[in-house]
Amino acid sequence: MEQTKNGMSSVEASTNPETEMLVLEQLKIMKKGALEILQEDELALKIRRSVTEHQPLIIKLGLDPSAPDIHLGHTVVLRKVRQMQEFGHRAVIIIGDFTGKIGDPTGRSKTRKQLSEEQVRENAATYMEQIFKVLDREKTKVCFNSEWLAKLNFESVIRLAASTTVARLLEREDFSNRYRRQEPIGLHEFFYPLMQAYDSVQIHADIELGGTDQTFNILMGRTLQKSAGQEAQIAIFMPLLEGLDGVEKMSKSLGNYIGVDEAPEVMFKKAMEVPDNLILRYFELVTDLHPDEIETLAKRLSDGENPRSIKLLLAENITALYHGAENATKAKEYFLSVFSAGELPKNMPHVVCTNGEQTLLDIVPHLISDKMIASGSEFRRLIKQGGVSMNGVRVESADTPLATPEAVLKIGKKNFICFDTDRLS
Amino acid sequence: MEQTKNGMSSVEASTNPETEMLVLEQLKIMKKGALEILQEDELALKIRRSVTEHQPLIIKLGLDPSAPDIHLGHTVVLRKVRQMQEFGHRAVIIIGDFTGKIGDPTGRSKTRKQLSEEQVRENAATYMEQIFKVLDREKTKVCFNSEWLAKLNFESVIRLAASTTVARLLEREDFSNRYRRQEPIGLHEFFYPLMQAYDSVQIHADIELGGTDQTFNILMGRTLQKSAGQEAQIAIFMPLLEGLDGVEKMSKSLGNYIGVDEAPEVMFKKAMEVPDNLILRYFELVTDLHPDEIETLAKRLSDGENPRSIKLLLAENITALYHGAENATKAKEYFLSVFSAGELPKNMPHVVCTNGEQTLLDIVPHLISDKMIASGSEFRRLIKQGGVSMNGVRVESADTPLATPEAVLKIGKKNFICFDTDRLS
Repeated sequence: MEQTKNGMSSVEASTNPETEMLVLEQLKIMKKGALEILQEDELALKIRRSVTEHQPLIIKLGLDPSAPDIHLGHTVVLRKVRQMQEFGHRAVIIIGDFTGKIGDPTGRSKTRKQLSEEQVRENAATYMEQIFKVLDREKTKVCFNSEWLAKLNFESVIRLAASTTVARLLEREDFSNRYRRQEPIGLHEFFYPLMQAYDSVQIHADIELGGTDQTFNILMGRTLQKSAGQEAQIAIFMPLLEGLDGVEKMSKSLGNYIGVDEAPEVMFKKAMEVPDNLILRYFELVTDLHPDEIETLAKRLSDGENPRSIKLLLAENITALYHGAENATKAKEYFLSVFSAGELPKNMPHVVCTNGEQTLLDIVPHLISDKMIASGSEFRRLIKQGGVSMNGVRVESADTPLATPEAVLKIGKKNFICFDTDRLS
Repeated sequence: MEQTKNGMSSVEASTNPETEMLVLEQLKIMKKGALEILQEDELALKIRRSVTEHQPLIIKLGLDPSAPDIHLGHTVVLRKVRQMQEFGHRAVIIIGDFTGKIGDPTGRSKTRKQLSEEQVRENAATYMEQIFKVLDREKTKVCFNSEWLAKLNFESVIRLAASTTVARLLEREDFSNRYRRQEPIGLHEFFYPLMQAYDSVQIHADIELGGTDQTFNILMGRTLQKSAGQEAQIAIFMPLLEGLDGVEKMSKSLGNYIGVDEAPEVMFKKAMEVPDNLILRYFELVTDLHPDEIETLAKRLSDGENPRSIKLLLAENITALYHGAENATKAKEYFLSVFSAGELPKNMPHVVCTNGEQTLLDIVPHLISDKMIASGSEFRRLIKQGGVSMNGVRVESADTPLATPEAVLKIGKKNFICFDTDRLS
C-alpha cells in the first residue's frame, strides 16, 4: 500500500473543478452495481491520473472460453467494461488458453480436459463474436495467455512460486475445504491462481473485473504486481445476476436466462418476467442507465407507481442494447398488443416447438396432453365457434400457421398456453 | 508395487546356485550398516536381473556442493556406493546446481544463496577431487541437474507438480512443523523435493542412497518414476555417523571428526579415540570390511578381548583406505611408539598450534595458561631435571623443535598436553 501510494504521490487532488467532476463521474459509473472495490481510494487516484495525463487505464477481464453461449448473467462484467471504455479506457480480454491446453494432467477434473490449439482458438472466436455485442471492438485487445505462460522456464516458475506461500493458497476457500475434508489437491492446482495473477503483471493491468468467486485470484494479481515492482491493480467485484426466477443465479441449464442472441420480442417478453423486486438490480447490472436515472426510477417505485411500467422501460432498454432502439420499440408494441391488460396468467404452460410443428393442427397433441381440449374435433369446433385466439387475434382455421417467435393461444374462456416458435424455420 | 512386480515378473529366482550366491552376497554388502531399505524384495529382484543380464544398476547419489571438506561422516554413503561399484554397478553423482543457481528467490534462506555458474562448478570440482578418494572414477558419472531442470517449461513443471498433492508435501516433517507453527512456506520450496525426485527419472536410477533426512525426497523419486512409467528406484537409507565424542553426529564445527585429507598419523590417532561401543559401527559404516569379518570381530569383543586391539585394526583399516597399507602400518608403529602402554590420560588438553610456534619455548604461554607450569624459568628447570618428555622421548632443551604432526608433552609426573602441529610449515 505505501509503495502504491508513494508511486502515485505526484497525482494529488486536482484544483481544477472540471477534472474533479470527471473523476467523480467515472468513479460513480464504475461503482454502480459493484459488490466491492479494492481499494476505492487507489481507484480514485488512478482515474485522476488517467484524466490528468490523458492516459487510458488498462481494464483486465479474464474469460473462460469453454462457455460458448452468452446470456445477461455474463454481461454484468462485460457492461462494466463497456462503460469504462466509454470513458476512453482500454480493455484487455485474457483468454486462459494455457490451462486449457494443459488440461488437468491427473485427468481427474472434467472441466480441465485438454483442448487442442485449434479447439481453443475456435471456441474463442465464437465467444468473441458474442462479446462484441457488448464491448467496443476498437478499444479491446484480446490476448491468449499461452503467449507468455508457455514461455516461462523452470527458474521463472520458481520465482513466481516464491511470491506466495502455501498457507496463503490454503486460505482460498475451495482449497481449504478440500484440505480439511482430506480430498487431494494436486500441487499443480496451486498454479492456476498464480497464472491468472501473472497475466495481470504481463499486461500491466490497472483494474481487474471479476465475480466474487475470483476474489482470491484477483488479489493474488495485486501481490504479484507488487513483487514485480508494479502498481497494484484495483479489484472490482461484480455480483452474480439472479435469473428470471428471482432465486437461482442466471444460467442456461436452469432455463431462467435471457440470451443476448434472442429475438427482440422474446428478449422483451422475458425481461417482463423479471420479478418486481429485481427491477432496479437489473437496471444496475445489465443496462447502461446512469445511476442518477436509476435513482429516479427507484423513487417512482417507492412512491407507489405500478412496477409494470418501470419494467416496460427495463425491457425496452435491454432489448435496445442488443437490437437497437427501433426494434426495441417494435418489440414493446408487439408485447403490448399480444399480452394486453395483464390478461395473461402468470403460470401459463410453455411448450418449445420443433421444426415439424408449423400450424395449429400440428400442436393438437400438446393441447390434448395439457388437457386444454379432449380431441382434434373439439379443437376444430372451438375454432369455428370463435373460442380460440392466437396472440390476441381470433383464429379462423386450424390450418393457421403458428406465429413466431411466440404463439400464445387462448382456448375457451380461461385456458392459456404459450408455444415458443423461435426456432421454427 | 504391482506395476513394478509386473515389470519384473520375468526375472524369477534363478535355479543357478552360482547366480543365487552372487545375488545374496550383493544383498548382504548393500544391507551392511543400512538403516532401512525400501523395498528389499524389489532390490533382490533388481540385483538378480543385473547379474543375469550382465547389466549394471544405476546408483544415484545427490550431493550438495556447498560443503567442501569431506570427513568420515560423509563417506558413509560414498563407501556404500564404492562397495556397489566393486560389483560392477555404476554411480551417477548428481550435483544439485540448479537450486544453487536459483538461490532462494525470497532471499530469506541463507543456505540457498544464489551462486554463479562459475562458483558452482568450482565448488563441485574441489568436492569431486575428495569424493574420488572413495569412489571409483571409472564407474562414476557426474551430472549437474541444471542440465535438465533448466530446460523444463511451464507445461512440464505443471505435469511434474501434478504427480503429487499438497497434503503429501505437507506431511514432510519440516514442512508440517513450519505449517503448524504458522511459519511461512514459500510455494517454491515445495519444488525442491520434486526437483530431486525428477533427477531420478532423468537418470533412470535403480537405487538412491541417502540419509534418513532424505526419506521424503527419495520416496518422491519412486512416485515420479512410477508416474513416468519407470520402475521405481530402491531407497537405501544410511545412518548418520556419530563423531569421536560418541554422542553428536560427526561434524567439522564440533571438532569430533576425522577428515579424509588428514595425515596418516593424525588419522590413526583420531581413530584410536573412537569410543569402544562404536568400534563395530565404525567398521560397518566407514570401512569396506566384509560383514562376515565384522561378525568375527564382534565375537572377539564379546568374548572379552581388549577393545584396544580391535581398535588398532580399525585405525589401520581406515588409514589404509586413504593412505595405503604401507603408510597405515607406519602410522600404527608411530602410534605405538609414542603412545605406549596406555599411559596417556583420556582427557588430555589439546592445543592447535599456529605457525609462529616452532619450538617448546614458543608454547610456554599455553603451558602457563593450562597451569602445567608457573613460569618459563620453572619450565627450563624441569627440563634440566629430566622432567619433560615429548612423544615419549626425554627433552634436553627448551629450544627443541615441536614434533609434527603431533606433540604430546609430559610435564612432571602426571601432566599431559597435546599440541596439534599438523599445519606447521
